[in-house]
Amino acid sequence: MDSIIDTAMNASSPLMGTSHPFYPLEVEIAAYLANEMTMQVLLTIFVAMILTIVGGTKLWVDKVHPNLPGKEKAAIWWFVISGAIHLCFEGYFSVNHTRMAPAQDLFGQLWKEYALSDSRYLTSDPFVLCMETVTAFTWGPMCFFIAYFITTSNPLRHPLQIIVCVGQMYGLVLYYATAMFDHYYNSAAYSRPEFLYFWVYFFAVNFIWMVIPGLLLVSSVRTIARTFAAFDKMTLALQKGTNGKAKGSKKDI
Amino acid sequence: MDSIIDTAMNASSPLMGTSHPFYPLEVEIAAYLANEMTMQVLLTIFVAMILTIVGGTKLWVDKVHPNLPGKEKAAIWWFVISGAIHLCFEGYFSVNHTRMAPAQDLFGQLWKEYALSDSRYLTSDPFVLCMETVTAFTWGPMCFFIAYFITTSNPLRHPLQIIVCVGQMYGLVLYYATAMFDHYYNSAAYSRPEFLYFWVYFFAVNFIWMVIPGLLLVSSVRTIARTFAAFDKMTLALQKGTNGKAKGSKKDI
Repeated sequence: MDSIIDTAMNASSPLMGTSHPFYPLEVEIAAYLANEMTMQVLLTIFVAMILTIVGGTKLWVDKVHPNLPGKEKAAIWWFVISGAIHLCFEGYFSVNHTRMAPAQDLFGQLWKEYALSDSRYLTSDPFVLCMETVTAFTWGPMCFFIAYFITTSNPLRHPLQIIVCVGQMYGLVLYYATAMFDHYYNSAAYSRPEFLYFWVYFFAVNFIWMVIPGLLLVSSVRTIARTFAAFDKMTLALQKGTNGKAKGSKKDI
Repeated sequence: MDSIIDTAMNASSPLMGTSHPFYPLEVEIAAYLANEMTMQVLLTIFVAMILTIVGGTKLWVDKVHPNLPGKEKAAIWWFVISGAIHLCFEGYFSVNHTRMAPAQDLFGQLWKEYALSDSRYLTSDPFVLCMETVTAFTWGPMCFFIAYFITTSNPLRHPLQIIVCVGQMYGLVLYYATAMFDHYYNSAAYSRPEFLYFWVYFFAVNFIWMVIPGLLLVSSVRTIARTFAAFDKMTLALQKGTNGKAKGSKKDI
């Protein structure tokens, strides 16, 4: 896949000022340095890190909370990995957004690989930066709280789960929509056009944060609605019972 | 206050291309036409419309649902006026964003008055447009559903209230943050510097959507947490009761 970039860079090299593979080709990305690691190595390390975190969480949950239903266990894995990505990976961008282009540490190179699908990560785009900052430092920590609250059946779990899921989904809708608006209305594409970058990195990878938060959101809304309905029914039944008893005693008298 | 604008425009007229009072002065706003109505007339009409909607809602609630607690009544007024502003006023911007600068209808002139505090409304700013579109056509209608659900004690009321409040607050945080980032980092101020525009229009008016949704969000989270705790307690008590009875009958036998 690196050859796509090489070919594209060679093809575009006659254009003045194009010294990087990101779109739009004419965008200025100061002090850019090409990644030292290949895409294959970077993605392997990233996937390995994710599998380690999910696997570690699974082992811990199975040991400490073996009786939790399978769906709740899966929700914990999700919130731990989601929180870790928000806080560490997206937090890295939020803190280092001015020095992304020449970065050669692991997360810096990973972001440059991802930026092939969205150059806004290399240009301190105001919306992307603000959205990622909220995601990293608000939704990130809250993900860990929710994971913990699932294990303790804390009554705050579902309200917090709704807050985080809405935050993740709304952020993503705005992320897609702003890019698509600039693409169609301002003819500014931030993603390279190859299938891997636009459809896999930009669309599909992010879409995970639409599907899973969507399912969890629906589940929380339904759980709350069901609990409220059952609570009302129970209260009513108890009141009737009490009234019935009261009436009964009156009769007895 | 119009004299501020006149003075500012005269002062800035030597600058090439500055034919409008919006900041940054060099931003291109094609086909701009100055408002035909004065600020005083525009704001009077706008405030009168809001008071009419809130007053009408109050009369209706007092007549049809006189026994609702005062806080619930106030929540209904809020969701009706908030929904109306989202759907009609912000919806107007979403639909007409390409023809805001020369507009002379009521909402067009009101938006041009507001744009003195944020010119992004006259330049189809991608983030502002996308955020306003979601606000108008998602949070807007949901506000009306919540107002209705309050009157029917629908168990979906609090989950939906959390969703809308998070949506409103997150949208506003990003709205403030993107403007402040461009102001401090890119030296691009979208608001005129006068107190009225920056502090009243841009900061204070919008801040209402931080304070009231914030209070409603906390209230919903607490109501849900309390109901879950009470439901668990009740279920436990009933289980104990049943167990007790069962034990009792065993003893009897």
